[in-house]
Amino acid sequence: MVIDSSVLKERALIKTIRRLAGSSPAGALMRGIGDDCAVLRIPRGSELLVTTDLCIENVHFRRAWHPASSVGHRCITRGLSDIAAMGGHPLACFLSLGLPESLPQSWVNGFLRGLLAQAGRFKIPLAGGDISSARQITADIIVTGQIPAGKAVLRSGARPGDRLYVTGLLGGSANTLKQLFAGKKIKPIRSNTHFYPTPRIATGAWLRERSLATAMIDLSDGLSVDLAHICEESRVTAIVEAKKIPVSRGADLELALHGGEDYELLFTASRRARVPARIAGITVAEIGEIRNRRDYSSAIQILGENGRVRPLPHRGWEHFARQF
Amino acid sequence: MVIDSSVLKERALIKTIRRLAGSSPAGALMRGIGDDCAVLRIPRGSELLVTTDLCIENVHFRRAWHPASSVGHRCITRGLSDIAAMGGHPLACFLSLGLPESLPQSWVNGFLRGLLAQAGRFKIPLAGGDISSARQITADIIVTGQIPAGKAVLRSGARPGDRLYVTGLLGGSANTLKQLFAGKKIKPIRSNTHFYPTPRIATGAWLRERSLATAMIDLSDGLSVDLAHICEESRVTAIVEAKKIPVSRGADLELALHGGEDYELLFTASRRARVPARIAGITVAEIGEIRNRRDYSSAIQILGENGRVRPLPHRGWEHFARQF
Repeated sequence: MVIDSSVLKERALIKTIRRLAGSSPAGALMRGIGDDCAVLRIPRGSELLVTTDLCIENVHFRRAWHPASSVGHRCITRGLSDIAAMGGHPLACFLSLGLPESLPQSWVNGFLRGLLAQAGRFKIPLAGGDISSARQITADIIVTGQIPAGKAVLRSGARPGDRLYVTGLLGGSANTLKQLFAGKKIKPIRSNTHFYPTPRIATGAWLRERSLATAMIDLSDGLSVDLAHICEESRVTAIVEAKKIPVSRGADLELALHGGEDYELLFTASRRARVPARIAGITVAEIGEIRNRRDYSSAIQILGENGRVRPLPHRGWEHFARQF
Repeated sequence: MVIDSSVLKERALIKTIRRLAGSSPAGALMRGIGDDCAVLRIPRGSELLVTTDLCIENVHFRRAWHPASSVGHRCITRGLSDIAAMGGHPLACFLSLGLPESLPQSWVNGFLRGLLAQAGRFKIPLAGGDISSARQITADIIVTGQIPAGKAVLRSGARPGDRLYVTGLLGGSANTLKQLFAGKKIKPIRSNTHFYPTPRIATGAWLRERSLATAMIDLSDGLSVDLAHICEESRVTAIVEAKKIPVSRGADLELALHGGEDYELLFTASRRARVPARIAGITVAEIGEIRNRRDYSSAIQILGENGRVRPLPHRGWEHFARQF
């Protein structure tokens, strides 16, 4: 049910993307944009990782807040961060793009530039995708990666007694978002991790290479929600210590516990493992412990700075629920 | 920027999908829904195929015309058909789904059932994906496949003198769509290829195994547009013979030449190749010839039933351009 005028616009846009992406196959990519499928070669002894992430206007970003290049950067970073959380290396990305007819070409170019610049930092090609008209800007990013066979760090490997660790600082992205919601003008500078987050590829791979992490996830939804995912898949519970949470400057404990999109890594390691305080240039903090599920009836607990233990609700972005 | 209520609905929907999809890893799939990435094992000596296709409400389907199960079926068939066009075998699929808040759960269930039933016919698991709220129903289907290394049938392999072939009958899907546009009620029965198309996986693989096809594409946009893709990538032109086009019952030459979504295969083969009249149960018709680009200034030609040669515009869905 493709329409002629759309087909022509589509073909022009595909040409633009192909030019920006660079069409020459390299590395794992045998055949990229321009055929029915992309063709990739997976190194012998490696398994393939695949992750898909939607970025939709007014759900994941706002045009009034996020410059196009930030939207592109954030979009691919979500996928790269999923690869990091398995301990893998990215191979290639794919982009399905739904665009309103009225969207200026300059926005699309800015978006692609932001996305491709971040892809370039991690040396992966844009290997294919699809285009359609849509009422909202809709980007689905697919990132593929590789990992030595049998070595992917799953969410399901946490065991009672394991220690819980987190990389970097938490709550920084949520703090910026909170200010945006409050109507503050925030300059979308490169050093602001809300606009330009960094996936922890090198840190994740370092942990996997040394078999240090028993379970791992990236912090996209927020510590409380993502820790609940590890606990659910591993059939365990956990306790975190409020005073050990590394809170980003300007943020507070609440934002650090429930704010999303920091794209740091949350992982568990045996209590006997020696986990360095810094891995691949990123600080690592021990923030709690995995417990047997029966110990605390299933709820994740938090040891407050007042010395009291209370359940940690896994609630994500409750603050903003009524504002969208 | 995920919202609490969405997170909760998302988690419930992911549970539903996981239940419907079946969570046990099997075959190539080492790890499916429930982790940061899916993990797949690609057989030694094989390359990976990846294709992504958007299906957006009121662009690719209408709720008033297409039952939910047909939308799911059509969605995954687009991806499977791309795998067929390389001569590959499907491995696993992924689904990114944007859903309006007001959409009934029964629609989502019908969509998933249609999609998963078709995935089941080709023995591939739904291995992962993403969910978000959206203003329009938006489905991005990613299908991965495998193919012996170096054996993918590309669009770029057609050579002057090669004969041009097409599988099955053309124009049937467009004929149904034309009637829908005209306000006719069409029962979405299983045998109607507009509602329930079949990807030509076995035929594509048969051609690839025997190295018979020099170039191949699936007919998603329509013969005139898709043949232009082969010509562009192969740097050749072509001539087709009107009287040899296999027109579907009820359709006409115009619909067969320019109508999309038949999901038949268009391929080229050496003039010395012996191409059977039926492959894997599907009829195959010789419909024309590949020519040197300089012969006819570049335009694809059609030899009409009146014996006159004229340029074949590659225009796709011109008829419907003003109707959406």
